[in-house]
Amino acid sequence: MSSDHNPFTGYAGRVATQDGLYSQSEVGLANRNSGILLETLALDVTPTGLHYLLTHFDVPLIDEASHRLHFTGAFETPFDLDLDEIRALPQVTQPVTLECAGNGRSGVSPRSHSMPWTYEAVGTSEWTGTPLRPLIERAGPKSDAVEIAFFGADYGFDKGVGHYFGRSLTLAQLAELDVLLVHAMNGQPLLPQHGAPLRLIVPGWYGMASVKWLGRIEALTAPFDGFQQVRTYRFRESDDDPGRPVTRMRVKSLMVPPGVPDWTSRKRYLRPGPVTLVGRAWSGGGVPVSKVEVELDGAWREARLDPQGARYAWTRWSCDWTATPGAHVLRCRATDADGQVQPLDPPWDVAGFANNAAQKVPVFVDET
Amino acid sequence: MSSDHNPFTGYAGRVATQDGLYSQSEVGLANRNSGILLETLALDVTPTGLHYLLTHFDVPLIDEASHRLHFTGAFETPFDLDLDEIRALPQVTQPVTLECAGNGRSGVSPRSHSMPWTYEAVGTSEWTGTPLRPLIERAGPKSDAVEIAFFGADYGFDKGVGHYFGRSLTLAQLAELDVLLVHAMNGQPLLPQHGAPLRLIVPGWYGMASVKWLGRIEALTAPFDGFQQVRTYRFRESDDDPGRPVTRMRVKSLMVPPGVPDWTSRKRYLRPGPVTLVGRAWSGGGVPVSKVEVELDGAWREARLDPQGARYAWTRWSCDWTATPGAHVLRCRATDADGQVQPLDPPWDVAGFANNAAQKVPVFVDET
Repeated sequence: MSSDHNPFTGYAGRVATQDGLYSQSEVGLANRNSGILLETLALDVTPTGLHYLLTHFDVPLIDEASHRLHFTGAFETPFDLDLDEIRALPQVTQPVTLECAGNGRSGVSPRSHSMPWTYEAVGTSEWTGTPLRPLIERAGPKSDAVEIAFFGADYGFDKGVGHYFGRSLTLAQLAELDVLLVHAMNGQPLLPQHGAPLRLIVPGWYGMASVKWLGRIEALTAPFDGFQQVRTYRFRESDDDPGRPVTRMRVKSLMVPPGVPDWTSRKRYLRPGPVTLVGRAWSGGGVPVSKVEVELDGAWREARLDPQGARYAWTRWSCDWTATPGAHVLRCRATDADGQVQPLDPPWDVAGFANNAAQKVPVFVDET
Repeated sequence: MSSDHNPFTGYAGRVATQDGLYSQSEVGLANRNSGILLETLALDVTPTGLHYLLTHFDVPLIDEASHRLHFTGAFETPFDLDLDEIRALPQVTQPVTLECAGNGRSGVSPRSHSMPWTYEAVGTSEWTGTPLRPLIERAGPKSDAVEIAFFGADYGFDKGVGHYFGRSLTLAQLAELDVLLVHAMNGQPLLPQHGAPLRLIVPGWYGMASVKWLGRIEALTAPFDGFQQVRTYRFRESDDDPGRPVTRMRVKSLMVPPGVPDWTSRKRYLRPGPVTLVGRAWSGGGVPVSKVEVELDGAWREARLDPQGARYAWTRWSCDWTATPGAHVLRCRATDADGQVQPLDPPWDVAGFANNAAQKVPVFVDET
């Protein structure tokens, strides 16, 4: 735990991390941020409004008509674009699955004091915009440029450091990634909370790279040292580990919890007999999912995979089960084409990033 | 606390209520249900996707084309309607402010084990549909009918009782309330999570009355005894109190937290100098807000009220303040035209319903 009691750190009200008990400020974050409802994993596209939202600071309310995107810094020919100019560029629409890097944090012990996601920080939307690469080429990074940084209009404090949310990608990463400059989601203009009027979508990476409320793209001659790049979103073994950056999503799968729920516990109840389990699986970097297995009554069984659709969107899977009376814990785990497999237990990380452990769904099967 | 340890009650994992510490299942509910982001109180209409969502069971995914609304029970001329028929009836669009009856629950001590809302379970949307009353008149309640019950397609368990979500209104209440049968929200077809394809909107009442995924309207010759009518949504002084039903919203106000936030604590920081505080106020039953006061440096000052707009929508207020260095706790409280005033401390209720205590916003004013 931090020993820093500067009132600006936000740690003043921190309680000792304890499995299964949460502080008021963690519940405040859970009330503020929102995730998918797992039953909507049945749908290819997450309904607008159910895509997960992790908002570090406040949602800026931006006047689209006067908003400009500035290309600045170490570019040969810096320029600005307004929204009409961006919409007049070549447009693409593609479904992309995004997951928050902190998804699964509450399953990592000891738990880091941040947004206590369980499984729900994921979603798939149809994003519309223009590819970023031609615009970077048009601005022309100078010969000594090494990274491009992206800044949002959202400002606030984290651990005492005031900053606009900003992230960078190296020129090599930009050459490889299919980054989009996005102004619409599911066929509608971006909603304020999803980055209106303009945001980045970085397919295949965790969500922190997809900067919202984008206003400035800056070419840098040294690696970006912004808070969100170097102080967080890093895998760390211990508090004094400088860490490695969080980048591509890890392979993961989730299932629609079968049966019907209890209101407060969310425990699932179903009748004995045949049931088809369905869910979604995805991996990072555009790597396809090659296998999904479901643990049923102690044995792992291979699920059916629907044909892979869009490169960066999740894949639907299904598996038949004959539910027998009693308590069961269902699990699912995916393998991707690179041979990466979901672990059964949460991988350790100080901040609980990228927990892709197999989902557990307890169900009670009863005749009544 | 309940002594019932039936595994179907969902109370098995319940921890003792303790102020400021929350159980895993409460965090599970906070992750699943979602509220407004308070900064969007600056807007007349809550952005789609940020209207609060309290989903007792799972979101049913309903095929609109085959969905029918059934008028059944003690009606003289029962009938069915499909969505096309409903859209062909006289249409109205109106902004309505809805608040969850459980909003503010986490401020009530001891805290009831349920969704731990702080302030965010409120929103205002533009709802489009047809008035319900002419349809009830067309069906014609029989002379011995006393209530009309409304049933959703959402099914689950609460305290061991399996049921479809259902609520009723008396004939006298229906004669007085401007209930709408709604199929669109903010100019778009209802989203699955907001009750698609059809829901009730009961303006002026807490949200439990606005039944989602509506499929059946039944005339009853005895008071409705469904779980959501008689076992919950009641004000109770103690566990053995049969209670009084929760109905109209209580007078309430909220402010946009000024300044900028710290990520985890959500504490607010701002610079010294003039700042205009803005917020929203509303009451139940279509009663207008008559006054909003803001507590600034120990004194209550009257805020400016914008002209009252639509009858059932919140009213904007604003108040100027000169922020001086140091820590401050800002509060706001509203009074309605019936003379009802928000209390400074949470009103007691076993389940933490209808906590309309004045919002507290701690802010730190600093030169840097």
